[in-house]
Amino acid sequence: MTTVDQVAALRSGDVRTLARSISIVETQSAQARKLLAAIAPLVADHSPQVIGITGSPGVGKSTITAALVSAYRKEGKRVAVLAVDPSSPFSGGALLGDRIRMQQHANDPGVYIRSMASRGHLGGLAATTPQVIAVLAAAGFDVVLIETVGVGQSEVEVAATADTTIVLLAPGMGDGIQAAKAGILEIGDIFAVNKADRDGAQTTAREVQQMIALGTWPGWRPPVVLTVGNRDDGIDDLLAGIQAHRAWLSQSGEEQQRRLRRVREEILALLASRTVQAAQQREADLNALAQRVLSGGLDAYAAVDELSARLTP
Amino acid sequence: MTTVDQVAALRSGDVRTLARSISIVETQSAQARKLLAAIAPLVADHSPQVIGITGSPGVGKSTITAALVSAYRKEGKRVAVLAVDPSSPFSGGALLGDRIRMQQHANDPGVYIRSMASRGHLGGLAATTPQVIAVLAAAGFDVVLIETVGVGQSEVEVAATADTTIVLLAPGMGDGIQAAKAGILEIGDIFAVNKADRDGAQTTAREVQQMIALGTWPGWRPPVVLTVGNRDDGIDDLLAGIQAHRAWLSQSGEEQQRRLRRVREEILALLASRTVQAAQQREADLNALAQRVLSGGLDAYAAVDELSARLTP
Repeated sequence: MTTVDQVAALRSGDVRTLARSISIVETQSAQARKLLAAIAPLVADHSPQVIGITGSPGVGKSTITAALVSAYRKEGKRVAVLAVDPSSPFSGGALLGDRIRMQQHANDPGVYIRSMASRGHLGGLAATTPQVIAVLAAAGFDVVLIETVGVGQSEVEVAATADTTIVLLAPGMGDGIQAAKAGILEIGDIFAVNKADRDGAQTTAREVQQMIALGTWPGWRPPVVLTVGNRDDGIDDLLAGIQAHRAWLSQSGEEQQRRLRRVREEILALLASRTVQAAQQREADLNALAQRVLSGGLDAYAAVDELSARLTP
Repeated sequence: MTTVDQVAALRSGDVRTLARSISIVETQSAQARKLLAAIAPLVADHSPQVIGITGSPGVGKSTITAALVSAYRKEGKRVAVLAVDPSSPFSGGALLGDRIRMQQHANDPGVYIRSMASRGHLGGLAATTPQVIAVLAAAGFDVVLIETVGVGQSEVEVAATADTTIVLLAPGMGDGIQAAKAGILEIGDIFAVNKADRDGAQTTAREVQQMIALGTWPGWRPPVVLTVGNRDDGIDDLLAGIQAHRAWLSQSGEEQQRRLRRVREEILALLASRTVQAAQQREADLNALAQRVLSGGLDAYAAVDELSARLTP
C-alpha cells in the first residue's frame, strides 16, 4: 500500500490500517517518518482530547477507563484507549485482564483499544506516544485515554503527553504522605478516590485535599472526586472535572503551552532515541568501551566521547 | 579543593566531601567528568554490593531498608542508602518520612543516606545512578541499597543498576495478576511479602509463587520470603536470599554480565543525556521547530533532522 492509500484508509476508519500504522510509528523507521510526514497536516487540523489516567496497581484504572469510554461514546465521540503496561515475561506481552474489562466495547467501531509496552529503550514511550496520538488524530478520534500502571517516570511522561491527567487513588492504598512521596500530587489535574464505597474513602479524599491545600496553584486547583467505577458512581463528577479543566486549559492559553511543550519533548525524545539506536548499532565498540570502563581504564564520560566521535561521520 | 584532595577526603570517609561529590556527579558537568576520571581506578578495585528494593507505595520499603541497614551494620559493613523519590512541589524536594524512619542510623558514620530526585530529564536516573554508586565505591562503601517508589520505568532502571533486586509486596496491595501487570515479576531476584502479620499474606505469597512457577528460570529461581519489617521478622530469610543470589551471580558468571550491561546502559544514558542537553541549549531553535510541527508544517522526524544538523559542528 502506498503512503497516500494508507492515509486514505486511515481517514476512512479502517481498523487494520490503523493498527498497522501504529505498529509502523512504533518502529521509528524510515516508513514511520514517511507516514508521519503524510499525516502531519491532518494532525494539525484535528487534535483529539488526550486524557491520562494513572495510579498504583489495584486502584481500578481499567474500570474507570471503561466508564469514561461509555460516557464519551454516549456523546457520540470516537474514543481510543492506549494501555501502557510493562510487558510480562509470562505472557510475552501485556496481560489480557484490562482487555477483558473492555470487552463491552470490543465490537464498537467507535472504540479502539491498544496495549503499548513501556519497557525497553530509553525514553521509548516518550518518543513514541505522541506519534501514536498523531495516527489516532489522523484517523479522526476525538478522545484518547492513556492508562498507565504505577507511579514513577512513566507517569511524568503521561502528564507531559496528556491535556488532562487524572490520578486515581483508592482507600487504604496509602495515605496522603504516600501519595506525595510517590510524586503523584504534582502531576494530577484531577484526583479521583475510586472504590469510594469502601472504608476510608472520605479520609483518603480529605488527606489529598489537605495536601492540595498546602500547594500553590496558579490558575487551576485540582478537584478531588469520589468514584465507584464498577457502579458508574461519580463518573459524572469526573467528566465535569475533565470538562472544566479543558475549558480552563483553553481560556488560560495553557493548552497551547502544553501542546508546544509536548512537541518539544517529543523532538528531544526522538533525538535521544535516534542517538542511542545509532550507538547500539556499534555493538562491538560499545562492548569494548564498557569493558574498559569496567576494568578502570576509562571513565564513562570518556567512553561517551570515544563513542560520539565514531558516531559522527 | 583540587580533585586529588577531594579523592583523598572521599577515601578518608569525610561525609561533606561525599555529599558534595555526589552533587557534582549529578550535574554531569566538566567537574563531574574530572572527578569520575580520578576515581575510576578505585571503583574498579572495590565494587559495593548493590541491592535494589522496589514496590508500590505503602508496602513498607523504608522499613525493610532500615532493617537491612541494621543487619549489614552488625556485620561491620559500611552501608549507603539511595532513596529515589520523585520530588514533591510541596516540599521542594523529597519528603522526610523515609529519613525519619532512618533516624536510628542518622548518627552512625558507617551509614550514609541520600535522597535522589527521579523527575526531570530523559534517562536522568539511568545516567546518574551508576556514577553516584561509583562515588560510594570510591568512598569505601560495602553495600548500596537503592530504594525506589512505585512500579514502572524507574523499576526497570533499578533492576539494571542493582546486582540483586528485591520486589516488596504487601497483602491486599494487589494480587498476582496485578503484580504481573505492573511488570514487577520480571525484575525481581527475590520477592518479599511484607506486613506478613496481616490477613492474606499467605495467599499473596502463594499467588506470587504460582506466577513464578509459570515462568522459565535458567539458573536462578526467585524465592518468596515473608517479612514483617517493623518487627525484624523474616529479615534473616531475606538476607539468606540475598546471599544465595550473590553466590549464584558470582559462580554463574552472571555478575560480570550484569556489570557489563550496567556500564553499557550507563554509556548510552549519558550519551542520550548529553545529546538532549546540547539540544536544550538551542532553546530558540527548539521552540521554532516545535511551533512548526504544531502548525503541521513539519513532522517531528524532520524537526529532529534540522536540530541534529545544527548540533553537529
